[in-house]
Amino acid sequence: MDIQISPLAVQLPELPPVAGVRVGAAEAGIRYRNRTDLVMMELSPGTTVAGVFTTNRCPGAPVDWCRASLKGGKARAVVVNAGNANVFTGRAGREACAATAAAAGELAGCPPKQVLVASTGVIGEVLPHDKLTAALPALHASLRDDAWADAARGIMTTDTFPKAATRVARIGDVEVRINGIAKGSGMIAPDMATMLCFVATDAKIPVPALDALLRKGVDGSFNCTTVDSDTSTSDTVLLFATGEAKHPRVPAEGGRALADFSAKLNEVLLDLALQVVRDGEGAQKLIRIDVTGATTARSAKRVAMAVANSPLVKTAIAGEDANWGRIVMAVGKAGEPADRDLLSIGVGGVWMARDGGVVPGYDETPVVAHMRGREVDIQIDLGLGRGKATVWTCDLTHGYIDINGSYRS
Amino acid sequence: MDIQISPLAVQLPELPPVAGVRVGAAEAGIRYRNRTDLVMMELSPGTTVAGVFTTNRCPGAPVDWCRASLKGGKARAVVVNAGNANVFTGRAGREACAATAAAAGELAGCPPKQVLVASTGVIGEVLPHDKLTAALPALHASLRDDAWADAARGIMTTDTFPKAATRVARIGDVEVRINGIAKGSGMIAPDMATMLCFVATDAKIPVPALDALLRKGVDGSFNCTTVDSDTSTSDTVLLFATGEAKHPRVPAEGGRALADFSAKLNEVLLDLALQVVRDGEGAQKLIRIDVTGATTARSAKRVAMAVANSPLVKTAIAGEDANWGRIVMAVGKAGEPADRDLLSIGVGGVWMARDGGVVPGYDETPVVAHMRGREVDIQIDLGLGRGKATVWTCDLTHGYIDINGSYRS
Repeated sequence: MDIQISPLAVQLPELPPVAGVRVGAAEAGIRYRNRTDLVMMELSPGTTVAGVFTTNRCPGAPVDWCRASLKGGKARAVVVNAGNANVFTGRAGREACAATAAAAGELAGCPPKQVLVASTGVIGEVLPHDKLTAALPALHASLRDDAWADAARGIMTTDTFPKAATRVARIGDVEVRINGIAKGSGMIAPDMATMLCFVATDAKIPVPALDALLRKGVDGSFNCTTVDSDTSTSDTVLLFATGEAKHPRVPAEGGRALADFSAKLNEVLLDLALQVVRDGEGAQKLIRIDVTGATTARSAKRVAMAVANSPLVKTAIAGEDANWGRIVMAVGKAGEPADRDLLSIGVGGVWMARDGGVVPGYDETPVVAHMRGREVDIQIDLGLGRGKATVWTCDLTHGYIDINGSYRS
Repeated sequence: MDIQISPLAVQLPELPPVAGVRVGAAEAGIRYRNRTDLVMMELSPGTTVAGVFTTNRCPGAPVDWCRASLKGGKARAVVVNAGNANVFTGRAGREACAATAAAAGELAGCPPKQVLVASTGVIGEVLPHDKLTAALPALHASLRDDAWADAARGIMTTDTFPKAATRVARIGDVEVRINGIAKGSGMIAPDMATMLCFVATDAKIPVPALDALLRKGVDGSFNCTTVDSDTSTSDTVLLFATGEAKHPRVPAEGGRALADFSAKLNEVLLDLALQVVRDGEGAQKLIRIDVTGATTARSAKRVAMAVANSPLVKTAIAGEDANWGRIVMAVGKAGEPADRDLLSIGVGGVWMARDGGVVPGYDETPVVAHMRGREVDIQIDLGLGRGKATVWTCDLTHGYIDINGSYRS
């Protein structure tokens, strides 16, 4: 199988250092050959951490480990491996997390519970953690503050391009840096989008404020995306604040001091989330779905997600067919309040269907041109209220079948 | 695009006459060329009727028409067309139903509201009902009691084989006949499975009993199947009882007199529902998913449906990969009570994963052999309670993309 880089790929940005963070990648030979598959991040003493995890009821051992570790609110290191998800691995899975954290903690000079772990790859195979711990000392010795690109590459699985984003935010008059990396391209559905994401800043932010910022940011980014409606057992987003920047003190509840930081963090998270959709398995088109006129925002999001997850809508867009009939179907199947005779549907800003029927004199030409592009926008107005939502997905193509019909073999 | 007959196709059975029912098919040229696309069924005076329809909030005009007509509980004729679904067609859609019913009613000698209509095909295009009404007189003149096979063929759209089933049931000491035909191969998800289905019997059954029988039967058949999770705007199942058979009177509430009839009706409905799954767009394998050990039957069904609708499970099975990790994922994403460490997963009767990990000494050989067959059985034991459910689906292949990426063009 010859996997091409996604036609929707974006360039890896330059990632300047974040004070208090050193990163690196190594070849541990867990599953892949001739590529890095182990990433470590070391964080300076005093770093605070917040995390959001999959809602899947059968999470992987690393998710359990992180949830428990996060109770302390402190982190000194992260170890991530690609190729094996350490999911449904029973006692061996728990032991792999503990052994990895112990080894990394010794190198970083911290208790194991200040080491977070994440794994991505095949489910149900025991993680050969001796390979991780054997590779860690040399990896730790090689950590640098300017190796973020290496880290972005080292956590990839079926990803076709590395994913990163960076922004500068102001707290008071002081500039702080926010860097993020992510991986993911399949098993992507909200709560969480299936992926791993690590974001670090040199800002000094108390745990409660950090946690609130992250939850809000993930809700407006990763949880508004879907590739295939499948929710991974390993989804993890971690946000670290090293506190190296010298800005005015931020109170525990955050508040106005973090307004710009919050906006920039949301940008980083949305940027990364859209990169994951752009790398959706087999994706040829990035699809944005705007729903307006719903009874509530929650209802709008459910309708948008029903459209985003409809195989018939996704294959129609792959075929560059502005088949709004399938969009009507998907709106209706969401089970949310909808009135066929008030519904309007547009593509690329052109209303095609309105008030229960096709728009009189509807000219398909601009719509056909829009459908041929790499980015397809769908507008749905339910005509009922003021609830609105935006979600992103990709089309469903032969590439998805190619990748997923032979992943293990 | 060259569509082959599904490898899971079954032979069309011989369909003996049902006393009081005459059927036929004609070429009305609605969309297709050189094939029948218009079907009429005439029912003897006194025929009772029950119906179940899509839960989609944006149903087609024919569904609205049938729901209203059904209030009378009587039917004398059905007109079905293929190629145009008459959905999201506004006032023109309602007029098409009324005009078709009026024309058929004149031929059958009944008021329009005793004529039921159904349409399947493209959404959002006005149904050229003049073509239907022009073809009806000759079609009506050609109706016969032995033309059920023609009717099964005339309602096909993307179906690759016609679908029918027949059974004999006993009411008292009298044999009655149950014939059914169905169409459907995509936009198939429960509540209802996307399809049209028409079942007729010569039994004499009061409307309340008929309605109860049909709802129960559909719940255990069509509503336990899914091809692509998409719920059509047109799903319709109609059950007619002509009352020509001379059996003991059946009370309004049905009851024990209908025990055998109910069992045989359920067989007809399940037979037809599985034929629809066997004709799932691009299907190469029929998949049966048995969930046991759930807290409730409802919970079991939700878990089974989450697995049945998971693109990653369906593509794995297409690739003949017994990837139970994806099944764990799909169980977990259902949001129903599940405990990773009590969960067991089997394929073809062989338990692969149990108690939160792979079965020690698990031998893949029989599982690999099972995966290569046309029928794949998945067993999931949640280990929590006594709730159980069975659902059926098909795999997700390149064929699905081929069919749905270019349906309109």
